[in-house]
Amino acid sequence: MSPERLTAFSDGVIAIIITIMVLEIKVPGETSGDTFQTLVPMVPLFLAYAFSFVYVAIFWNNHHHLFKSVKSINGAALWANNALLFFLSLIPVTTAWMGEHINSPAPIALYGIDFMLCAATWRILVIVLTRMSQNKKLAKGISSDRKGIASIFINILGIGLSFVKPFLGLICYLIVLFIWIVPDKRLESDIIKDEE
Amino acid sequence: MSPERLTAFSDGVIAIIITIMVLEIKVPGETSGDTFQTLVPMVPLFLAYAFSFVYVAIFWNNHHHLFKSVKSINGAALWANNALLFFLSLIPVTTAWMGEHINSPAPIALYGIDFMLCAATWRILVIVLTRMSQNKKLAKGISSDRKGIASIFINILGIGLSFVKPFLGLICYLIVLFIWIVPDKRLESDIIKDEE
Amino acid sequence: MSPERLTAFSDGVIAIIITIMVLEIKVPGETSGDTFQTLVPMVPLFLAYAFSFVYVAIFWNNHHHLFKSVKSINGAALWANNALLFFLSLIPVTTAWMGEHINSPAPIALYGIDFMLCAATWRILVIVLTRMSQNKKLAKGISSDRKGIASIFINILGIGLSFVKPFLGLICYLIVLFIWIVPDKRLESDIIKDEE
Amino acid sequence: MSPERLTAFSDGVIAIIITIMVLEIKVPGETSGDTFQTLVPMVPLFLAYAFSFVYVAIFWNNHHHLFKSVKSINGAALWANNALLFFLSLIPVTTAWMGEHINSPAPIALYGIDFMLCAATWRILVIVLTRMSQNKKLAKGISSDRKGIASIFINILGIGLSFVKPFLGLICYLIVLFIWIVPDKRLESDIIKDEE
Repeated sequence: MSPERLTAFSDGVIAIIITIMVLEIKVPGETSGDTFQTLVPMVPLFLAYAFSFVYVAIFWNNHHHLFKSVKSINGAALWANNALLFFLSLIPVTTAWMGEHINSPAPIALYGIDFMLCAATWRILVIVLTRMSQNKKLAKGISSDRKGIASIFINILGIGLSFVKPFLGLICYLIVLFIWIVPDKRLESDIIKDEE
Repeated sequence: MSPERLTAFSDGVIAIIITIMVLEIKVPGETSGDTFQTLVPMVPLFLAYAFSFVYVAIFWNNHHHLFKSVKSINGAALWANNALLFFLSLIPVTTAWMGEHINSPAPIALYGIDFMLCAATWRILVIVLTRMSQNKKLAKGISSDRKGIASIFINILGIGLSFVKPFLGLICYLIVLFIWIVPDKRLESDIIKDEE
Repeated sequence: MSPERLTAFSDGVIAIIITIMVLEIKVPGETSGDTFQTLVPMVPLFLAYAFSFVYVAIFWNNHHHLFKSVKSINGAALWANNALLFFLSLIPVTTAWMGEHINSPAPIALYGIDFMLCAATWRILVIVLTRMSQNKKLAKGISSDRKGIASIFINILGIGLSFVKPFLGLICYLIVLFIWIVPDKRLESDIIKDEE
Repeated sequence: MSPERLTAFSDGVIAIIITIMVLEIKVPGETSGDTFQTLVPMVPLFLAYAFSFVYVAIFWNNHHHLFKSVKSINGAALWANNALLFFLSLIPVTTAWMGEHINSPAPIALYGIDFMLCAATWRILVIVLTRMSQNKKLAKGISSDRKGIASIFINILGIGLSFVKPFLGLICYLIVLFIWIVPDKRLESDIIKDEE
C-alpha cells in the first residue's frame, strides 16, 4: 500500500472527527431559552471542544510529516495507524463527557486515558515507521522522539492527578498541548536538508 | 506542507460542515404530524440553513482562489486556516439556534459573532498568505481586500443592530452575503493575467 | 476553477449524504425491544432509505460523466452545482419524513418536490455546461437530454397523484428511478468515440 | 469510469462509516452520572463498536487490493460496489442494536445478516472484477477466494447459532474477523511478482 492512500484515508477520518465534535454541542431547544444566559452552562463544553479541536489538528499536522519519511506501508504500520484512528475517533465522546462534568474526576481521567492511548499508538507508529524508513538521518531524528515520550508520561501524571483535583489533570493536558504546538524545528530542518 | 494537502483537508471539513447542517433540521416525529402545516414552524430554520449553505459555499470558493497564489504553507498560515475551520465548524450550531429563535436578539447576535469571527480569521489568513506570496501583483490584489474588511464592519454593525431589532441584524448579514456572491472580477482577471 | 476540484468537493458532499441517511434509522432503544417484531414498523423507513441510496448513487454516477465533457467551470456552473448539492443534502430529511408516514400525502409529495428540484437543477447544470462545452458532439448528446426532461414531468405527476393516493406518487418515483438505472448507451458510446 | 474515482468515493464513504459509529455511543447525560460505574453498561456497546471498526478497516484494506487488478469499471462492478457500500453503511445501525442487547438472539442475528450480506456482495464484486481483469495470474489468485467463501458460510452458521445461544453467534463472527486479519500472503506476493 502506498503512503498516499493511507494518509488520504486518515485525513478523511480526521476531518470527520474534527467536524462532528461540534454536533455534540446541543443548542438550547425551543423551550429552553433564547438568551446568552442559557449558553453559560455550555461554556465548559465549548472550551473542551476547542481544546480537542487544537489537539486533533496537531495530530493531523504531525501525521503528515511522519509519513513523508516512508516509501511504502507494511501491515504493522497499517494496523498501528488504524489503532491511532480508533482512539482519535473516541475523542468526540470523551470530550462531550468531560465538557458536561468538568469538576468530576472520572470524566477528566477518561479524557486523559484516551489522550494517552492516542499518544501511545502514535509512539508505536513512529517506531514501526522508523524501522522501515530508508532515510537514516530522519529515522534517527524521529526515533529520538522526546516530545512523544514526554507527553505519554505527562498524560499518565494528569490521569492520576485528576482523582486528587480535576483541574490538576486539565493543567497536565494543557502542558502536553503546548509542547506540541511549538513546531519541532530539528525535524523540520532535517527534512529540508534531506530534500536538498 | 504543500498547499494541496491543506486545501484537500479544508475541502473535506467544509464538505462535512455544509452537509451536516441538514441534520439539525429535525423532521416532525411519528406522533407530531404528517401534514404541510406541521412544517410551517420549521420554515425559519430551513431559511437559516439555506443562508448558511450559501455562506459556507462562498468561503469554499474563495478559499480555493486564495491558496492558488502560494507555493508552500508555513506554521502561521496553517493555524490561521485551522482557526477559520474552527469558526466555520460552529456554523451548524449557531444556525440551529438562530433558526429556532428568529425573533430573539441573542441567537441573531451570536450568529453574527460567528460570522464575524470567520471573516476576521479569513482576513488574518489573507494577510499571512500575502506576506509569503511570491506573486507580487496578486499579493497586491489580495491585500487591498476591501470586501473582506467591509464584511467585518457590516457584521459588527449587524451584531449591534440585532439587539435593537433582530431583523435589522439579519439584513446586515444578507448585505454581506450579496457582497460576496458577486465575483471579484479584479482578482480573477489578475490571476488570469498572471497565468498568461 | 478546474472541474477536478468541483467534482472532488461534490463527491465528498454526496459521500456524506449517502452515509448519514442511515443515522436517520433509529434503532429500537434499550427499553423498546430486542426482537425482530420491533423492527417491523421500521421496514418502510428502511425501504425509503434504500430507495434514496440508489437515487443518490445514480446522481453521483451521472455527475461524473457530465463533468468529463468540460475543461473549466464558470460562475453559473458553480452555483448550479451548489444548488444541486443543496437539494441533494435535503434528501436525508425528506426521506426520514416519508419513511415515517408512508401512507400520508404530504410527506410523499414533499419527497417528490425535493426529487423534482434535484432533477430541475440537474437540467439547469446540463444546459449551463452544454453551452460552454468545447465538445460539439457530446454537447449535442447531452442537450437532447430526454431522460432528464421526462423525469421532471413524471415527478410533477407523482407529486400531484400523491394527494389522490400516496402509493401512486411512489410508483411515479420508482419509474423515474428505473429510467435512470438503465445506462444511457448513446451518451456512453459518444464519449468513447470522442476519446478515440 | 476509472477505478481511481470509484475507490476515492468508496474510501470517503468508508471513512464516514468508521467515524460516525462512535456517535452511536451516547455519553451519560448531565443528570445520569459522572463516575466510571455509569460507563459499565456501555462496555458491550464499546466492544461492538471496536469489533465493527476492525471489520470495516479490513474491508477498506482489501477493497484497495482488489481494485489494483483492474484498469476500468463497468456498470456491473459499479452496482456491486454500491451494494457493498449500502450494506457497510448499515453497520453503525446493526452494531448499535447488538451493543444494546448483547444477550438477545435477534440483534446478534441481524448483525450477522448484515455481516453476511457484506461478505456476499464482496464475493459478487470479486467475481465481476475477475471476469474483466486483464491480469490472468491475479484473476486466478482472486477467483480462488477461499477466505471470502468460507466467511459467508461461517457467518450463516453464526446467524443460526445466535438463536441457540447468542454468544455462539458472536464467536462465529470473531472467527471470520481473525481469518481476515491474517494478511493474504499469496495474493500480496502475486501482486509484487506482477509489478516486477
